[in-house]
Amino acid sequence: MSKKIDIRLYIDTTLTINGLIGLSQEHAHYLGGVMRKKVGASVAVFNGRDGEWACEIAEIKKRAATLRVIGRIKEQASEPDLMLAFAPIKKARIDFMAQKATELGVSHLQPVFTRRTNVERVKSERLYANAIEAAEQCERLSVPKVSEPTKLDDLLASWPSERMIMFCDEDLSGRSAHEALSTLTDKQKTHPWAILIGPEGGFDDTERAAIRAMKQTVVVSLGPRVLRADTAAMAAISLWQSAIGDWR
Amino acid sequence: MSKKIDIRLYIDTTLTINGLIGLSQEHAHYLGGVMRKKVGASVAVFNGRDGEWACEIAEIKKRAATLRVIGRIKEQASEPDLMLAFAPIKKARIDFMAQKATELGVSHLQPVFTRRTNVERVKSERLYANAIEAAEQCERLSVPKVSEPTKLDDLLASWPSERMIMFCDEDLSGRSAHEALSTLTDKQKTHPWAILIGPEGGFDDTERAAIRAMKQTVVVSLGPRVLRADTAAMAAISLWQSAIGDWR
Repeated sequence: MSKKIDIRLYIDTTLTINGLIGLSQEHAHYLGGVMRKKVGASVAVFNGRDGEWACEIAEIKKRAATLRVIGRIKEQASEPDLMLAFAPIKKARIDFMAQKATELGVSHLQPVFTRRTNVERVKSERLYANAIEAAEQCERLSVPKVSEPTKLDDLLASWPSERMIMFCDEDLSGRSAHEALSTLTDKQKTHPWAILIGPEGGFDDTERAAIRAMKQTVVVSLGPRVLRADTAAMAAISLWQSAIGDWR
Repeated sequence: MSKKIDIRLYIDTTLTINGLIGLSQEHAHYLGGVMRKKVGASVAVFNGRDGEWACEIAEIKKRAATLRVIGRIKEQASEPDLMLAFAPIKKARIDFMAQKATELGVSHLQPVFTRRTNVERVKSERLYANAIEAAEQCERLSVPKVSEPTKLDDLLASWPSERMIMFCDEDLSGRSAHEALSTLTDKQKTHPWAILIGPEGGFDDTERAAIRAMKQTVVVSLGPRVLRADTAAMAAISLWQSAIGDWR
């Protein structure tokens, strides 16, 4: 395994030495048709639980292929428990948000309908496909969970008491995220967390009051410019990761 | 001016009360053809120097229009001196980087050719057009300066002694950005700064050594995942802004 393997696939299956993995039609086409790989070529595989494994192509046809598992390259590492709860936005931007959030290391994508949300449907499978692709490319060993959309009121009503909320409020009354995250207690840092991002146009006043009233909420400011929802999400994740996540 | 003005234009001209502004063909088409605005409609204008001004459409035809300046809505605010020096990447991603960097508040975009840069040409006008559009949309009162591309060696050779460098090194030896920025001296915080981002595949070892040898350099880590160049740029700008820029 001295040569770097240039293809990484997420496959939700058990990985054991000498095990055989039957690939989906899409993966077979990608390996053979797109990447022109032949029998014997190396492929890395991860399943989100058992680390990353080197495999070789045992058999490849147009619509089917089999990998043989050679050995483990990387141990599974634990990752921060960080949910991104976000109001759905338009197609290109929501794809982008799922990709970038995965790259930046969130563990759970939760679409949330708010009063000012303009998008009526969210395709969770599509979000998940974007997350998988990003995980394969950024050398992550896991794929974030993607939940079905829910209403903000319902999400807050069933909010777990231990999960802290980093709420990026647009009214500038919050402290800077850097400062707010610097002054958390050690206990607060070890809790599971969520970042809450509103739609373009923001949460309405009732929603803001409800979020601020939660005892888990830490209100932060992302500065004086009007950030798009996807930009705000990326900024908030970066700030959280660097202050209390696994960028430390 | 009680009603919020929904159109903001960047126009590089002097702004004074009752002054008349002759618009470009593109702006005239945008106002009349795209936004369907008529004589008397409100438009906000900024020039990067004099704040934001309310104007009304004094005359509008298919290819020409004139605005009359009514009065100032916002004073010009000072902005942090933050350069983003980045290796050019592919077209869609470089457009995106210019837009997002503008939204996040950089003052200067400097494309830099490195040894592993795969893109041979950069259209600075195109970067500038993206920056203007983003500035108009995010309610910024300025547009970042966009410089012609330069070679990394030349850039470092003429680097101003007072401009600090936040260098996002991929080898993970740096401290987290949060920690590194938290421990700067007050004097260092007030210096002009630059964020230095490599191409996909990173700087080569010679380049890394040259950057690390600069006395202005602060090495930071953006965590264990492989970030795309545009993601790394956005993360770094967010961290800088929240720790020592104008998100405080």
